[in-house]
Parts: sequence; C-alpha cells; structure tokens
Amino acid sequence: MTIQPIKWKDDKVLLLDQRVLPEKEAYLECRTYQDVAHAIKHMVVRGAPAVGVAAAMGIALGVRTIPEKNKNSFLIQFDKICNTIAATRPTAVNLFWAIERMKNVVYQNLHVSIKALGLLLKKEALKILKEDIESNKRMGTYGSKFIKNGAVILTHCNAGALATGGYGTALGIIRAAKDQGKKIQVIADETRPFLQGARLTAWELKKDRIPVTVITDNMAAFMMQQKRIDAIIVGADRIAANGDTANKIGTYSLAILAKEHKIPFYVAAPLSTIDFKIKTGKEIPIEERAKEEVSHIRGKRMVPHGVSIWNPAFDVTPNRFVSAIITDQGVVKKPFQKNLKKLVSK
Amino acid sequence: MTIQPIKWKDDKVLLLDQRVLPEKEAYLECRTYQDVAHAIKHMVVRGAPAVGVAAAMGIALGVRTIPEKNKNSFLIQFDKICNTIAATRPTAVNLFWAIERMKNVVYQNLHVSIKALGLLLKKEALKILKEDIESNKRMGTYGSKFIKNGAVILTHCNAGALATGGYGTALGIIRAAKDQGKKIQVIADETRPFLQGARLTAWELKKDRIPVTVITDNMAAFMMQQKRIDAIIVGADRIAANGDTANKIGTYSLAILAKEHKIPFYVAAPLSTIDFKIKTGKEIPIEERAKEEVSHIRGKRMVPHGVSIWNPAFDVTPNRFVSAIITDQGVVKKPFQKNLKKLVSK
Repeated sequence: MTIQPIKWKDDKVLLLDQRVLPEKEAYLECRTYQDVAHAIKHMVVRGAPAVGVAAAMGIALGVRTIPEKNKNSFLIQFDKICNTIAATRPTAVNLFWAIERMKNVVYQNLHVSIKALGLLLKKEALKILKEDIESNKRMGTYGSKFIKNGAVILTHCNAGALATGGYGTALGIIRAAKDQGKKIQVIADETRPFLQGARLTAWELKKDRIPVTVITDNMAAFMMQQKRIDAIIVGADRIAANGDTANKIGTYSLAILAKEHKIPFYVAAPLSTIDFKIKTGKEIPIEERAKEEVSHIRGKRMVPHGVSIWNPAFDVTPNRFVSAIITDQGVVKKPFQKNLKKLVSK
Repeated sequence: MTIQPIKWKDDKVLLLDQRVLPEKEAYLECRTYQDVAHAIKHMVVRGAPAVGVAAAMGIALGVRTIPEKNKNSFLIQFDKICNTIAATRPTAVNLFWAIERMKNVVYQNLHVSIKALGLLLKKEALKILKEDIESNKRMGTYGSKFIKNGAVILTHCNAGALATGGYGTALGIIRAAKDQGKKIQVIADETRPFLQGARLTAWELKKDRIPVTVITDNMAAFMMQQKRIDAIIVGADRIAANGDTANKIGTYSLAILAKEHKIPFYVAAPLSTIDFKIKTGKEIPIEERAKEEVSHIRGKRMVPHGVSIWNPAFDVTPNRFVSAIITDQGVVKKPFQKNLKKLVSK
C-alpha cells in the first residue's frame, strides 16, 4: 500500500485531507496557490517535508495564472505568491527551503519565456516530491540499523508517509526495518491537541500491517518505567546547526523521559530540515496556534468558557538529549555542530 | 462559592455528575447502594477522598433496605454491600479505608438494634464527609507555606473540591494560599483521557476566581523549560509506606520533568490515602480502564478501528521524585518511610 499525501494531477494539487482522517479518506483539490496556502495553514497537509512539497506545488500552481506580459510583472507576482506561501506556518524550515529552491529556478532561468519558466517550476516541484521520497528511503536504510528484531519503538506525532512526499522519516525507518524482515511494534502517542498520532500514525501503520498501540501522551513515562520501550524515534520541523531540534509539542518531554530511563532518542529528518543559518534552537520561531485546538475536540467544547489556554505547536529539544540524528546523507552523532557541518561539506 | 460534589439529602445520595461538567451542572440521584457503586465505577464521582466519602454514603444507603430480621442476615447483607462498593475501583485506597471505617461501626456496635446500626452508619458517613473537608483545610494551612505570592503552580488531573468532600487537596492548598492574600496562577494539564484538568480543575478554579490556564499534557515540559512554573502540586490515590505515590496517569512524567528542571514536586493527600500495609509502590494495583476512553473523545472515534490501545488510569511516582508529602497531620519530608511512620505514631 503506497500512501500519497500530495499529488499533482491535471494541473491541480490534490491533498489527502489530514483533518478528517481516519474517518474519511478524501483528497482536497487545490486549484489556486491560495487554496494551497490555506490548506497548509489549516493542516490539511502537515509535517515539515510534506509542507515543503506542498509549498513548491502551490508555487508551481500559482505561476500558471500570471499573465505572460513581461518578466518584471512576472517577478512581482511570483514574489507575492512565494510570500503568501511563506506566511502560512513559521516553524518548519522545509517550507522556506522549498520556496528557496523554487526561487532559484526562476533566478537562474530569467532568460527563458514565462511559459517555459512555468514548466520548469512544475518540474522542480515534482522533483522535490520525488527526491523527498528517495531521501526517506535512504534515511530508512541508515536508521534501520538502530532497530533490532522485536523492538518496540515509541513515536510522537506523525513523521510518516503523511508527513512527507511518502514513506516517512521516523516511520520510514520503521518501514525499512520491517522490509528487512524485522518484527517491530510501534507505540504511538496520541499527540494532543491535533491527535496526529491517534489519527494519522495509527491509520498509516495499520494500512501497512505494522502493529501499533495508541496511548495518551501522558502514558509514555509509565511505559518506559515498565521497560516496554526500546527506542524513541521522532521527526523534526527544524534542526539548528548545533542539533537542537524543534518538533511537535511534547517531543522535549519525551527526550527527558528517555534520558531518565536510558532509552535512545533518535531524530529522523532530511538535510532540508537542518537550518544552518541558525546556531541554536533558541532562534527557532515557535508557532502558537488557535486556542480552539485545545479547548475543543472535534468541535466539542471541553474547557469552560473564559479559561485561558496556551497552545504552542512545537517545542525545542536541546541537542544533549539526542542520541543521533538520522539524515538522508547518513547518521550524525555528537558533537552535532561539527558533525552536521561535515555532512554538507562532503 | 462552595462546591459540594457529594450530598446526603432526604435519604438519597446526590452526586454532582463529573462526566458532564463543565457543560452541565447536574446532580445524579442515587437511591440504592448499587446506584452509588455504578456512579463510582463510571466516574460520576472520582478522586480518592471523594470516592471514600461516596463509598461510605453508599453503604449507609444500602443498609437502609436490609430487612430488620436478625443480626446474622444483616451481617451477610452488609458484607455484600461492602463487597459491591469495594469492587468498583482498585487503586484509590480511600475507598477501602472508608469501607473499613463503616465495618468498624458495625463490629463495635453489634449489641444495638439494626435500625440503630443504620443510623450510626449514616452518622459515620456524614462524619467522614465533614472530617474530609476539615482535613483538606488543615492540609491547605500546612501546604500554603510552600506557595509564594505570585507563584505559578502546575497541577495535574483534579485534586480539588470535586475530588474530595469539598475544598480539595492540591487545590485546597491553592485556595488557602489565595485566602492568605497571595496571588496565585494555576496551570492545569488537561489530563487525558478523561480531561479532569480541562473540564473539572478549570471549572472549579474559575468558580473561585483563581486564574487558570489549560495546557495539553505534553506542553508541561516546554513551560518548565521557559521557567514559567514555580512548583507542582498533585493529589494522590494511594501512597505506600515508603512514600511511593500512585496518582492519575501522567503524574510520574511530571515528577521526572520537575526533577530535570529543578522544580519542587509536592504531593497533597490526607492520612487516609497512605496505605501503611504496603511497603512500596510496586504493590499498588493499577486500574486499566476501557479502551474507548482513549479511542473516543466525547463519543467520537479518534483512533482507527482495529488499532490496539493501552489505558492505565494511574502510575506510580517513586518516592525519590517527591519533595514533600503534605498531609492533614503535617508536612512529611525524606526519608519518607521513617517520617510517615512518625506521623501515625504521634
């Protein structure tokens, strides 16, 4: 079973609507770049690599409607499209990375016609999608060596096929281990408030017949105390040059629990998630989302009216808690600053 | 505003239905001991001290329908009632403690008439309720000295008026601090799966005009990292003779996070919550509740069909993580085994 969260079809972008999974498996059809921006903002598509792919496709979609007048007006419109896509979510760096790639296509091909530029941008977006799936598979190969036969792996949020072009980062490693014939069990944190673990990770692992047990986020420590977890693997939304890792809220908590119980804690992310422009995690902007995500569950109010709510979507795990960062270019261990740098200078 | 979760009225037991709060404020009328047992099992009333009070009232209610024939048949019926009440929930020791108190009333008064025994049992149940509120207020006085003016206190689940006869254990301390004129802010973990924090703690603190902010359970670590939490205070369902503390699932996780961030971690519980019969927390039975509490939220399915679920209702925090146990007989510090023993031999 191949899960395709993002498709380009008949010059439309189709997004598997992750707000309604697992209840409904429905694709949302995006006809304009504004549709794509709206979909990213409202988590029809989520997960750093998937957001990157969707952003590129949104831009490719957007330039199709720019009148073929002159390059100047094209560039003004192109910039507007990129800015709209960039303004959707602040934390995942893959979004900005994908926009940069699309910008480079334009800036390096200013000599070709606007129509040809449009085709190049579409080609680049499809290439980003293809490369992302390939990079996940490489990550799977690198990461699966950390997974023993019979292992029980805890994961948080959804770093699976749904969070990427396909296959997944953290779950890609689990898929690769399974493909090697290893028996793996996954424990999925439900991941409040958006329930990506309960809804998405459980859904896609069940599709792939990988045994999965859902727990609420606050049960993970008790499971570790009972020695029922062999390793933790999570994805990442942005990794600073020193290895500090922004990921779904609750990841930092798991990292501390892993340290207390002497359980290895792995981060799986492609090179495009590493932001070498920022030195530490302190510089990563943390998105705060609508209070209703916490106060309401599936439209039903849980918290009394007038009570304050805090809803940060991510947290930052300091590098000292990370056992290894599994990338598509190889595994990186401490000291991260030095070894991550090596990775790109290869 | 005085919150009364449990009332004896016109020879019926009225329970403020905690399943439907904060949406509805409605009392469930229990006419039989079976009604009370059902209400405890299904969490109409919850929280260790409240369960103890409800159990005693349930027994007092039950004996009223025993025919006034002879003591032998009375004792058989009485035993049956006690067993039914005891079989509702396994972890909170106050349940068994309250049943013991009711049994002692009977065994020490075998010479009086069955009718008189019934009145004595009713009197004892009302006494347990009254004593519980008084004991919470004493705990408040002892515990409030740990709370500085302006403090931000994180709490888990609901250890408030709703979890007791009234006033609360952990929230009783916060109420006492507030009554002393201190400005307190409370951070309430929503406490999945039953959402006692989001629904109950937020509701009762709002009623008392104590500022409260609700977060999902997995946000606590991030808040501690930002140095926004001054202390953690939780209740307890059972404390072993060595201070190991069973409390709502997620408590152990918070205790580890508190240690990592050097934040004091207090347990507030009356003497009736300490089980001197068990040496360590390993002997505390942990209730596993229905999978639907995790897979469904307010009746709506979140987890795909056929996915495994684990739903332990409590966890055990080893004594080394506990800064102090605040009881109704005074504050106990390490070494807990020795100092808890001192408390009862006073």
